[in-house]
Amino acid sequence: MARSSEGTSALTRVLAVLDAFTADAPFLTLTQIHRRSRIPLSSVHRIVAELVAHGLLEPVAGRTYRLGNRLWEIGSKTPGALGLREIAEPYLRRLHDEVGQHVQLAVRIDTDVLIIERISAPDAVINGSIVGGRIPIQLSSSGLVFLAFGEPGLLDAVLEGGIRPMTSAGPQTAEQLRAAVDATRAHGYADAEGWIHPASRGLAVPVRGSEDVVVGALGAVVPNDGASPRRLAALLQETAHRISDALLRAYLPAGHPRALPGGSLRALVSSSAQSMQYLERRARAR
Amino acid sequence: MARSSEGTSALTRVLAVLDAFTADAPFLTLTQIHRRSRIPLSSVHRIVAELVAHGLLEPVAGRTYRLGNRLWEIGSKTPGALGLREIAEPYLRRLHDEVGQHVQLAVRIDTDVLIIERISAPDAVINGSIVGGRIPIQLSSSGLVFLAFGEPGLLDAVLEGGIRPMTSAGPQTAEQLRAAVDATRAHGYADAEGWIHPASRGLAVPVRGSEDVVVGALGAVVPNDGASPRRLAALLQETAHRISDALLRAYLPAGHPRALPGGSLRALVSSSAQSMQYLERRARAR
Repeated sequence: MARSSEGTSALTRVLAVLDAFTADAPFLTLTQIHRRSRIPLSSVHRIVAELVAHGLLEPVAGRTYRLGNRLWEIGSKTPGALGLREIAEPYLRRLHDEVGQHVQLAVRIDTDVLIIERISAPDAVINGSIVGGRIPIQLSSSGLVFLAFGEPGLLDAVLEGGIRPMTSAGPQTAEQLRAAVDATRAHGYADAEGWIHPASRGLAVPVRGSEDVVVGALGAVVPNDGASPRRLAALLQETAHRISDALLRAYLPAGHPRALPGGSLRALVSSSAQSMQYLERRARAR
Repeated sequence: MARSSEGTSALTRVLAVLDAFTADAPFLTLTQIHRRSRIPLSSVHRIVAELVAHGLLEPVAGRTYRLGNRLWEIGSKTPGALGLREIAEPYLRRLHDEVGQHVQLAVRIDTDVLIIERISAPDAVINGSIVGGRIPIQLSSSGLVFLAFGEPGLLDAVLEGGIRPMTSAGPQTAEQLRAAVDATRAHGYADAEGWIHPASRGLAVPVRGSEDVVVGALGAVVPNDGASPRRLAALLQETAHRISDALLRAYLPAGHPRALPGGSLRALVSSSAQSMQYLERRARAR
């Protein structure tokens, strides 16, 4: 792709502009985009104009811009995030009906976990998770799941980057993180008591896709009141097995007796049985 | 932005590659991307390599690619889609508890509606909506909401493009579409009986943001059994008012007595009250 005089590609600059927008700064002026992205103001002008033309940015009042719905639309086609979330959503809702508090689903990006869904209750305990937000992998129960059951080299990659604990409750050293990963493997679930906030406890279990690869972490954030986590961990595991089964059925060949209805749409869509059959017929007719 | 010899910009080509991936074709080879995007194969090679390096595409088995979780992450920061969905989600869940069937939330992109959330039941009636999918504005109850209560010039823009009905039940002519829009205004809700499928009926009402601008359409898809829609319409309107109120409170100045907790995060995040206070403190401490 074409490179500017500074040697950065057009795509790198576009991403720097888009990344300037965050959950706590969703509306930015050109000058703010320039400061946050460190891209020269003249380039910001040109890139923003083109992003607006494509609907990836939207102008709002006061010479301000926000990320556009077109961008959400493109992102909504991701099987690893929205597809997983769509298939998991009915199970997540049922889990929330039982657990109350917070239940959530995370995937991994590099050495962070990315929260792709969270269902909360108004009076639930403190939880630092934001849908679309990241947490360093070594600081959360969801992260422990990937460290314990995910790719073999991941723990070493995390230890190279350093631990940087947020509170005095989580692992402070490489040894302590290794011990937490070992405990997660031994129990079959991750337990982060007060790691993010002393009032809260995170539990998480792996969600497996085809060939048993860990594709997500299913978690709950509940009061850190010293209660036994056994029952909740069992409930999480049961729900994760159901989600894994639905994922497998979404990827079975369409003619297979256990395949979910919905043909080639099954990997991204989860609607009622009749709707999936209808969508499949419509997709075939195209 | 830099332009290729064909005169298309780098961003246009990147978007053509990303748009090649759809709900019914989430996994593509380089050749398939080339055929669907009509971008020369050599350029596809180069663009895909760069998209993979940035995590916007992910390689999967069999020389195939899928949209990457990084893309979902960028899209998740959109206030008009994910922000609206986050704030509406608890109300949507409560509505689904009462209605069963399908409840959904849509925004507008040009002359289409884009479904940003849908909650369904396994035994619910046929519904053509896919989260992340579009429906032409003139064919759905959500679309009627934007035509009746949205920007003034929208109906003319739609009529210029032609109606192209999907079934014999919806408006077939400009006159019939105008009549449906008038009826929507008169009733205060949109009613699409069998428009998408004879077995289903869509009802929808506007969700208003600041200055009463229509920012979304809240809808339900239920059996098309000739029952009076009054009770459901009233329930939708009540829920839409609650969502509008939460949206307004999300955008009030942080010190205002009615402002939702969560400071500058309120426009994109909806978690428990304690979590919003915690997130606000953490954002301030940065």
